[in-house]
Amino acid sequence: DCPLVVIAGPCQLESLDHAQMIAGRMAEACRAAGAQYVFKASYDKANRTSLAGRRGLGMDEGLKILGAIREMGMPVLTDVHSEDQARAAAQVADVIQIPAFLSRQTDLLLAAGNSGAAVNIKKGQFLAPWDMENVAAKVASTGNERILLTERGVSFGYNTLVTDMRGLPVMARTGWPVIMDATHSVQQPGGQGGSSGGQREFAPVMARAAVSLGIAGVFIETHEDPDNAPSDGPNMIPLDKMPALIQSLMAFDRLAKADPLRV
Amino acid sequence: DCPLVVIAGPCQLESLDHAQMIAGRMAEACRAAGAQYVFKASYDKANRTSLAGRRGLGMDEGLKILGAIREMGMPVLTDVHSEDQARAAAQVADVIQIPAFLSRQTDLLLAAGNSGAAVNIKKGQFLAPWDMENVAAKVASTGNERILLTERGVSFGYNTLVTDMRGLPVMARTGWPVIMDATHSVQQPGGQGGSSGGQREFAPVMARAAVSLGIAGVFIETHEDPDNAPSDGPNMIPLDKMPALIQSLMAFDRLAKADPLRV
Amino acid sequence: DCPLVVIAGPCQLESLDHAQMIAGRMAEACRAAGAQYVFKASYDKANRTSLAGRRGLGMDEGLKILGAIREMGMPVLTDVHSEDQARAAAQVADVIQIPAFLSRQTDLLLAAGNSGAAVNIKKGQFLAPWDMENVAAKVASTGNERILLTERGVSFGYNTLVTDMRGLPVMARTGWPVIMDATHSVQQPGGQGGSSGGQREFAPVMARAAVSLGIAGVFIETHEDPDNAPSDGPNMIPLDKMPALIQSLMAFDRLAKADPLRV
Amino acid sequence: DCPLVVIAGPCQLESLDHAQMIAGRMAEACRAAGAQYVFKASYDKANRTSLAGRRGLGMDEGLKILGAIREMGMPVLTDVHSEDQARAAAQVADVIQIPAFLSRQTDLLLAAGNSGAAVNIKKGQFLAPWDMENVAAKVASTGNERILLTERGVSFGYNTLVTDMRGLPVMARTGWPVIMDATHSVQQPGGQGGSSGGQREFAPVMARAAVSLGIAGVFIETHEDPDNAPSDGPNMIPLDKMPALIQSLMAFDRLAKADPLRV
Repeated sequence: DCPLVVIAGPCQLESLDHAQMIAGRMAEACRAAGAQYVFKASYDKANRTSLAGRRGLGMDEGLKILGAIREMGMPVLTDVHSEDQARAAAQVADVIQIPAFLSRQTDLLLAAGNSGAAVNIKKGQFLAPWDMENVAAKVASTGNERILLTERGVSFGYNTLVTDMRGLPVMARTGWPVIMDATHSVQQPGGQGGSSGGQREFAPVMARAAVSLGIAGVFIETHEDPDNAPSDGPNMIPLDKMPALIQSLMAFDRLAKADPLRV
Repeated sequence: DCPLVVIAGPCQLESLDHAQMIAGRMAEACRAAGAQYVFKASYDKANRTSLAGRRGLGMDEGLKILGAIREMGMPVLTDVHSEDQARAAAQVADVIQIPAFLSRQTDLLLAAGNSGAAVNIKKGQFLAPWDMENVAAKVASTGNERILLTERGVSFGYNTLVTDMRGLPVMARTGWPVIMDATHSVQQPGGQGGSSGGQREFAPVMARAAVSLGIAGVFIETHEDPDNAPSDGPNMIPLDKMPALIQSLMAFDRLAKADPLRV
Repeated sequence: DCPLVVIAGPCQLESLDHAQMIAGRMAEACRAAGAQYVFKASYDKANRTSLAGRRGLGMDEGLKILGAIREMGMPVLTDVHSEDQARAAAQVADVIQIPAFLSRQTDLLLAAGNSGAAVNIKKGQFLAPWDMENVAAKVASTGNERILLTERGVSFGYNTLVTDMRGLPVMARTGWPVIMDATHSVQQPGGQGGSSGGQREFAPVMARAAVSLGIAGVFIETHEDPDNAPSDGPNMIPLDKMPALIQSLMAFDRLAKADPLRV
Repeated sequence: DCPLVVIAGPCQLESLDHAQMIAGRMAEACRAAGAQYVFKASYDKANRTSLAGRRGLGMDEGLKILGAIREMGMPVLTDVHSEDQARAAAQVADVIQIPAFLSRQTDLLLAAGNSGAAVNIKKGQFLAPWDMENVAAKVASTGNERILLTERGVSFGYNTLVTDMRGLPVMARTGWPVIMDATHSVQQPGGQGGSSGGQREFAPVMARAAVSLGIAGVFIETHEDPDNAPSDGPNMIPLDKMPALIQSLMAFDRLAKADPLRV
């Protein structure tokens, strides 16, 4: 079992400088803690709660920035929303990601599979963990064998998500590496009327509980000033808290991987 | 208040003959009962549970059939999955429909709004009724004022949906007509492993309860032989039961509209 | 099929005068509309959200008042919380009621069954409709064949209930009459911190949807001044709105019973 | 922060020999691992799914056995269902437990508080974590300051529970020690028709995730032959797997307590 992968970055790309700053700080924090780092950011927020929410830089500028981050020597991940985007993003990104709301769209999954990039599939908020076997099989049908499955909570009443820890070993039975998205799982979808709320303070709780089960990686959105970030501020973790968090998670990761659960 | 609209047809298009047969039978049943009829069918099932599920005839052939049905003198509705499809389908369909999983995709909503057709938005299984105000506002931002909002159940544990009747008047507060999807709301998503299950016997329950609240319309999938239909068989209503069902719903519709609830 | 039974009254007994006033007004409203009336009130609220919530008059004084109401010529219902209370309340009440939280307590169900009174069992917020078959069988094992089953919503996320209309015909399959509790099903348990919130405006929605399915009765708490009632104010219906509500429900009841659903 | 408390034993008392055997084996396993041990067993299962479920030895015989176990030198815990039982059980038990279904019954909470024993309150399947503050305050109003709060899952759809890991730190904010019930949280209530199902294989998952968050204790039901136990067989952990499980949990406990989460 490999050391924990940390997929982290801002919710949306803001500028090259900003991306490089976060990438640099995160890479350093992961190196210090012995974690594997993957930079994450979105060039387009295609499903904001309301039309007034900021969408981001767009694909052309976004992919340029991601290319520059990759040249810093780290893998990059970004999410895609159409077949065209899957093909374009795969030119730059090591991992392309299927958003949770789109996790059942067959053509997008096939295009992602065919893109040549690794594919991280977020589990839909409306899916059971065992439903992800059929979802992953759509990607795998293209011959692509680099698939990741990410937990990000399931609908629980209105404007609330809950994370079922049993879902992590259930998804692991597929054989694909399992990632815990610690910041979206504490989102309160639509919880602020025109945008989503969140409970940032619980993201380390979700991350630690999941890592203790021996998962492959964590997904964490971070920002130097979450309260003023263009999206997902309520659930992002402040950048200056990330080094200690990753250090802490690595201790649980080592313990978990030395003592694997057999489910 | 207008008489109930009945949006009905097979889950997916199978052939011109088949579509004409169902459209004819349904139009006759609605005429006899005093309901307004809209033919509904899909040319592509883009989000089947598994890759093995049958997807349908495809857009080109599908739109041809829908055009032929429209020439029979009734409005037609079909669902779209991309901006391109929204534009193409609007050439033929009176109403284009946003699938529930895609109900937060801003670009698709805008393209639908700009298409010139009326837009029926299915409420996502992961949304609260009040979240639909922001969703509808995305379409309305294009100047399109022919919007319908459809309830089809909300996630309730795993592989199960529940319909909250309060959601109907909550959505009606937006001012847009509200439709009850009586057959998808009794779906059991992914409930048969490789495909969704359903509880066909409860579709009339959902329809009647909703119509008694004074909604604008019902959405019901029907097939002459549901157990052998290519998709959604477990929740479709047999075609030969539709005339009596519509007759019955119209009695509740008249009573409800003579005695409107004030919520 | 008999005309709708209306079980109605204040959440808790306040005084003899108050009970007689409500009983008189409700009896008159039911007589005018052709409904069967049962007076309902609690002598003890044994499970308030917080210790600060008012509990009521207590059993001795409460049962005296219920006895006086019964002498007005109408059946009375009250809820019980222990085996002793079941025996005592059955001396006065025609129907004793098992609170939802206690719907799995075997000894209480058996004592209620043995009490000689009819038994109304509220479905626990943690139960599925089909679980009520085993619950009712505990009462029926005593030879008591006067059992009612009442829907009052199921847990849906935190501090929220949802009512699944399918549950009404599912419970009806047991053969026992099914009641819809229109005011508790719109409760928001614990939703105001130290007490429960509620959405009074949706109680007529729940009542009408349920009655349209052909159920045996509705349960509605009412008060002449809900905002100043000692408990459940947020979800009780103002007394002066009851005559019109019952009139309206009777029209749906007649239609539903003339056209029974076969599930 | 003290080392993890392990509350463990069979779901129901079967005989003195059986109780002594399990108590001895568990005490030895806890001593070896450095955990604090509390013996747990029920003398009466008062809320079985169906009347056919076995209820246990009864209070008189049960309390005698618990007294004998206590003489082995370990604290004992048992659950109570009425005010009388609370007083009687507190003569023998160090900790009396309020069952989840009864967690809102004010008189039972007060009687437990007044009994002199410590009180473990299981969180109702219908409560939010923050609702437990009011519940604990009922016990604390008696002056009893030895209160434990136990998570055992929350209703999630029908016949299913989910455990929200955020609930553990939320309940810890009350200041009372928090326990994770690892075996009831994987119960499937009513999931086998006449009795509850369970997913024994996930109990170690729930225990480890919770312990990694730095909780005070775990609650685990165990039996030498779960498949033939009189109740809760589907979710109990085989006795011979307990020593390794506790050893493993203690490693996570030490790490968690050396690196406390600040929520």
